[in-house]
Amino acid sequence: MTPAQHKSDRPIAALLVPDILALLDEAPGDLAAETEEMHAADLANVVEALPPARVGDFLRALPASRAAQVIEYLDEELRAEFLEHVSTEQAAEIISEMTPDDRADVLETLEEKTADEILSDLPDEAREETQKLMQYEPDTAGGIMTTGFVAVKQVESVEQALMEVRLAARSGRRESMHALYVIDDDDRLVGVMSLRELVAAPDGASVADVMHTEIVSVQASADREEVARVTSEYDLVAIPVLDGFGRLVGVITVDDVIDAMVEEQTEDVQRLGAVQPLEDPYFVASFWDLVRRRVVWLVVLFIGGIFTSTAMTSYQSTIAAATFLAAFLPLIISSGGNSGSQSATLIIRGLAVGDVEISDVLRVLLREIGQGVALGACLGGIGFLLIVVATDHGALFGAAVALSLVLVVLMGTVVGSMLPLLLRRLGFDPAVASSPFVASIVDVTGIVVYFTVARRLLGIA
Amino acid sequence: MTPAQHKSDRPIAALLVPDILALLDEAPGDLAAETEEMHAADLANVVEALPPARVGDFLRALPASRAAQVIEYLDEELRAEFLEHVSTEQAAEIISEMTPDDRADVLETLEEKTADEILSDLPDEAREETQKLMQYEPDTAGGIMTTGFVAVKQVESVEQALMEVRLAARSGRRESMHALYVIDDDDRLVGVMSLRELVAAPDGASVADVMHTEIVSVQASADREEVARVTSEYDLVAIPVLDGFGRLVGVITVDDVIDAMVEEQTEDVQRLGAVQPLEDPYFVASFWDLVRRRVVWLVVLFIGGIFTSTAMTSYQSTIAAATFLAAFLPLIISSGGNSGSQSATLIIRGLAVGDVEISDVLRVLLREIGQGVALGACLGGIGFLLIVVATDHGALFGAAVALSLVLVVLMGTVVGSMLPLLLRRLGFDPAVASSPFVASIVDVTGIVVYFTVARRLLGIA
Repeated sequence: MTPAQHKSDRPIAALLVPDILALLDEAPGDLAAETEEMHAADLANVVEALPPARVGDFLRALPASRAAQVIEYLDEELRAEFLEHVSTEQAAEIISEMTPDDRADVLETLEEKTADEILSDLPDEAREETQKLMQYEPDTAGGIMTTGFVAVKQVESVEQALMEVRLAARSGRRESMHALYVIDDDDRLVGVMSLRELVAAPDGASVADVMHTEIVSVQASADREEVARVTSEYDLVAIPVLDGFGRLVGVITVDDVIDAMVEEQTEDVQRLGAVQPLEDPYFVASFWDLVRRRVVWLVVLFIGGIFTSTAMTSYQSTIAAATFLAAFLPLIISSGGNSGSQSATLIIRGLAVGDVEISDVLRVLLREIGQGVALGACLGGIGFLLIVVATDHGALFGAAVALSLVLVVLMGTVVGSMLPLLLRRLGFDPAVASSPFVASIVDVTGIVVYFTVARRLLGIA
Repeated sequence: MTPAQHKSDRPIAALLVPDILALLDEAPGDLAAETEEMHAADLANVVEALPPARVGDFLRALPASRAAQVIEYLDEELRAEFLEHVSTEQAAEIISEMTPDDRADVLETLEEKTADEILSDLPDEAREETQKLMQYEPDTAGGIMTTGFVAVKQVESVEQALMEVRLAARSGRRESMHALYVIDDDDRLVGVMSLRELVAAPDGASVADVMHTEIVSVQASADREEVARVTSEYDLVAIPVLDGFGRLVGVITVDDVIDAMVEEQTEDVQRLGAVQPLEDPYFVASFWDLVRRRVVWLVVLFIGGIFTSTAMTSYQSTIAAATFLAAFLPLIISSGGNSGSQSATLIIRGLAVGDVEISDVLRVLLREIGQGVALGACLGGIGFLLIVVATDHGALFGAAVALSLVLVVLMGTVVGSMLPLLLRRLGFDPAVASSPFVASIVDVTGIVVYFTVARRLLGIA
């Protein structure tokens, strides 16, 4: 009866495994009752910790509705494996207990043949709902919405509406009731109210009196990133989804928005680190899948890096004349890469949260030129002191290093800030402007700047 | 009456400004009625687009409850400026209309003296609630929870509970009702149910029959990142917050969880780009604040980079003997930085979403050694071909470049994957292991590896 203090569940789940296995061998009939008090998400953790061969026995020992809940929280691969190995009837029974959106999500992760078989075994209404949802792209509003929502007509009285809601709630269908939607005779969304507002409404009022007409909605085709932004901006717990005619076709609940946010963030962070976004968690992704998603960018950056060798080769006589010049090269070009990473990160995040727009390009450019000069001057000052105090190369070389640093850091801030805006303008994800990508562009120009400045100031050929 | 199709609101808000200003001059009394249909978040966008001198007039023309809603969505600075310039009574009237958590958040952004004055002007109950909330650190569960929730006693009947809920709903206090909480005589949380379940409960049932005892909760001292993880894992719309005695002290609603997620994500992304997290949006942060938050890491990385010069200097005779060696250095060391960025990103994100734990250190190490060898071999192969085909340095130098690439890329994957785990183990944010940070560590070792390998294979002193 004590509330579960949430810490890390995985170790706890692992501790329960021996008990669960013993129960499964000795009294499988008791399993449902013994685990009744557990949250489905915790039970899913236990299932993930079971020996793979026993997962099927465990899930079959639960009632279909409970098994459906647990499966919704299960790791994708384990879920697919289980559903592809039980009979189609059993799979259909479990899947029909899920909410329409989870049903579509689960079927999309199965092999097409298995999914089709399970689909044809579902009750007619559930099948049609699911097929409708499966038509939408997974990363759009349509792809994450559910068709399980409660809509009432504008002309009804509060009593009629409350009765409908109570019937829907008692029907046991797992529908979202965070908000109740009001539609006109053509199914167009005209209002929204909370269950709480309906419950609190004075007797004799009509739905039209209670509802709000200031509705925030998204199109079914909207990107899920857009859905996340709208949900966050308007503090919503559910967001209605409309088709091209303004008709209410679904509702996105906030738990799915959060899942979408986490997935989008993972993709963004991986792009920023020059990894093609993984589809699976780190340990679930296969070794070669991981290599494949990393090698693409490494090779692109390596081939881009060949230009640094070309640039260096053209200064070979300069290096031969003053070998100490080479010693300071990595320091100088990496400073440009670092300031470029900073600018790219700030602009990419600004674009993602809506603080920066493409139309701000000039303001960004001016600001980043200023930042580049200020930051470059700071590093240049340190560089000058370093050369003069700690080496015997003299003030003139110190000045060359300082000037190079200002120019290279400035180049970093300009390239790093403009590249994400350019990518967005061209329709690409700005997060492609990863730190390594920006650094590799700045490296080449950094080499040219440094040797040019050094040759001029030191009078080397 | 047509539902607002959400696109980008800022341009729309700007279009409304002339009408709003005209109304404000000619008939300020009509302003409330004319803007009634707009969502408070949209109205906040309009306020942000107004000339600063008119913001006060506009907000004072709205009823206090409406003004409170708009202010909650307002940009922090504009909000502070407005509240510090109206009379304390007016500020207190508006702030008392806010939910307790927003009230605490708003007061925390004001100057202490102003906040204290407003606080002392609030009604007793509101003041006590607010002071209680202000005691918690802003980035903990206590800091983002609200004390506005509905709790009923375990021993009550469904009818009694429903009556209490209806009274609370009708009282007009802006309380969260996504979930109803059941407490025992000592205020300890013993159950939870949705308003929907209470509405659907059969007549004559007691609260104890309806409630779930599988409760997911967090401690008031829990980090807000932990709150986000729990909310996402259990698909919650509200999460109860307990004190050390298991007593229910507050509730966190999902809109605040989403805000916290977005803020945490911004901090993580900025750290990954070697920027100290900004407290304000890109254009709101002042020029020098931005410089300050960037220069710290740039200087740290620059000073770390001095080791590359030291390392280079010790190979000066090698460079003098074979100047072409220097030409391939940037290419080789940046490959190590790139593979290191990838590993760091994958592990940092894995830690953030819970796919990777500190205890996985050995699995991660083995996997990343394998990745390093595979990726290094791939780049090494390309490097070998490049040298043999496109230069006249011969196969032996090609082999030196290839071997250096394997070793440097391997070093990148090992350093990049282990550093975030080490930082987490030491209690730091693993995202401090930014791409530039990892690259700068790998740079130094890359120089040593490359020159050592080249000297051995090519027989240079």
